Amino acid sequence: MNKSCALIDHSPLTVDDMSIKQTWIQFIHDLQNVTCAALEQADGKAVFKEESWQRPGGGGGKTRVISDGNIFEKGGVNTSSVFGEVTEAMRIQLNIDGAKWFASGLSLVIHPINPFVPTVHCNYRMFELYNEKDEVIDCWFGGGTDLTPYYLFEEDVRHFHQTYKNVCDAFDPAFYTKFKSECDNYFVNWHRNAERRGLGGIFFDYQRPDEICDVNFWVNFCKTCGAAFSNAYLPIVEKRNKISFTNEQKNWQEIRRGRYVEFNLIHDRGTLFGLKTDGRTESILMSLPPTVRFKYNYQPVEGSEEDKLLQACLQPRDWV
Amino acid sequence: MNKSCALIDHSPLTVDDMSIKQTWIQFIHDLQNVTCAALEQADGKAVFKEESWQRPGGGGGKTRVISDGNIFEKGGVNTSSVFGEVTEAMRIQLNIDGAKWFASGLSLVIHPINPFVPTVHCNYRMFELYNEKDEVIDCWFGGGTDLTPYYLFEEDVRHFHQTYKNVCDAFDPAFYTKFKSECDNYFVNWHRNAERRGLGGIFFDYQRPDEICDVNFWVNFCKTCGAAFSNAYLPIVEKRNKISFTNEQKNWQEIRRGRYVEFNLIHDRGTLFGLKTDGRTESILMSLPPTVRFKYNYQPVEGSEEDKLLQACLQPRDWV
Repeated sequence: MNKSCALIDHSPLTVDDMSIKQTWIQFIHDLQNVTCAALEQADGKAVFKEESWQRPGGGGGKTRVISDGNIFEKGGVNTSSVFGEVTEAMRIQLNIDGAKWFASGLSLVIHPINPFVPTVHCNYRMFELYNEKDEVIDCWFGGGTDLTPYYLFEEDVRHFHQTYKNVCDAFDPAFYTKFKSECDNYFVNWHRNAERRGLGGIFFDYQRPDEICDVNFWVNFCKTCGAAFSNAYLPIVEKRNKISFTNEQKNWQEIRRGRYVEFNLIHDRGTLFGLKTDGRTESILMSLPPTVRFKYNYQPVEGSEEDKLLQACLQPRDWV
Repeated sequence: MNKSCALIDHSPLTVDDMSIKQTWIQFIHDLQNVTCAALEQADGKAVFKEESWQRPGGGGGKTRVISDGNIFEKGGVNTSSVFGEVTEAMRIQLNIDGAKWFASGLSLVIHPINPFVPTVHCNYRMFELYNEKDEVIDCWFGGGTDLTPYYLFEEDVRHFHQTYKNVCDAFDPAFYTKFKSECDNYFVNWHRNAERRGLGGIFFDYQRPDEICDVNFWVNFCKTCGAAFSNAYLPIVEKRNKISFTNEQKNWQEIRRGRYVEFNLIHDRGTLFGLKTDGRTESILMSLPPTVRFKYNYQPVEGSEEDKLLQACLQPRDWV
């Protein structure tokens, strides 16, 4: 885990490094454009509204939110590229040792109206750390895409996982199994008997480039994952969006959304780090669902459709 | 802050100490009974349902929840008396040095239906720490009561604060100012520009008995605070409960409830410690509101009634 970036073996901040950053920033903005366009087309009514913001300490971002659509109740596709000096909080909370840092990524969360359409989340990010002389001393990539259904359609979950398995297999035959398992072990409400937030996907973090998998490898991997998003998610939206639902089914969705809130506010490293280090609160909390229900000790009827979903969240399984 | 318990100057776990614990446990159960009865009477429809639970590591509690009343949408009045060995997590997170501990308290949160009726929270607790020989080596009391309105009726907030000022003044003329300010500085969403969860009340923690304010003093102070709850809160319920409200006003309440969720899950020491040390999740999260709304970057119209409440949360003021 302590290998350093292939690129940075040549040391100081070079034109190569600048071009990697530029390539990355170009990638997340292209992905933001393409993904927003695909989601708007699927929705057929709502359009994304953009807000650009600057971070006082350095950098900024573009937050794009959608709400009250035909299909999507609330969602955001955000990019940010921020940099600054390593603070005491970062030293302690991120266990980071360096003088300056750069972080850039895209983050997406979509909450549909219909409880038969799953919520989806994806995130792709790169991080660089510099010494006092502005030389790159560390670099890593992270990201993933995961699905949070409210009702279990096994074929949908299989399709979603198969899409990312295909992407992974094109890069490394070991990736899917590894990153699927990392996903299952990350999005966990530990305070609820290790109940998972959803039915997973892939998740990877602290992927440091080396001689075999260099910076370009990881940028291409993230690009390919990002490009697969629409194929992974939109066919499910298309297939389930017209199913009519009852108030009880909507309530169940809102109860499960409560678990989403619990995970994001209690356990999610990204959310907590952002909130505790002066990130832009509204952009970070864009991820929270539009309407949520917290019931005391709610338990679905054993064997019901709601219980089937819950059991799948309690016991991660193989989908491909 | 490092004075030790008057009682424990006489050292080992004595009959006196047992009787203090018994007195305390009796107090929280009496307060639970009296408060539930008063709330049921005010509501006129819903009754509390009780669940008793045992903690595998030692002790247990009685959770009483109310829901779907005439007035109260969701609420709980919980007691627990738990004990165990000091774990590594407690050593780090509570900065506690000892072999065993005992904690006992009452915790109450009430979420009314009508947005003109405030949410209320109160909590009274005692904590003891023992060495390997079961001798008491530390002891403290904590608690408070605070009001979270959705619309600002200044006379209600004044009444609430005046009630607790009267209680405080009977014990120490310095208490109200001190504990009011501690309350303003505790229930804070630091990630939202130091916006307070509500309009305060009193809050105190780590109150260690000494020669002047001994154990009996603190037990009596907590008893008097607890007894004042109904007088502080129920007249406000009575006065505002019949005001008719629009969907927009209900939405505003649900947006503010979102801030309540954010505080409890991101910042509240008690909630996080409970969740991360195997507390009973359902009893701890009973505090979360029944229905909640998270809107992207919602800002009330300047000068509106909603904005007046928000401004009062951003700038704590003197109410008596």
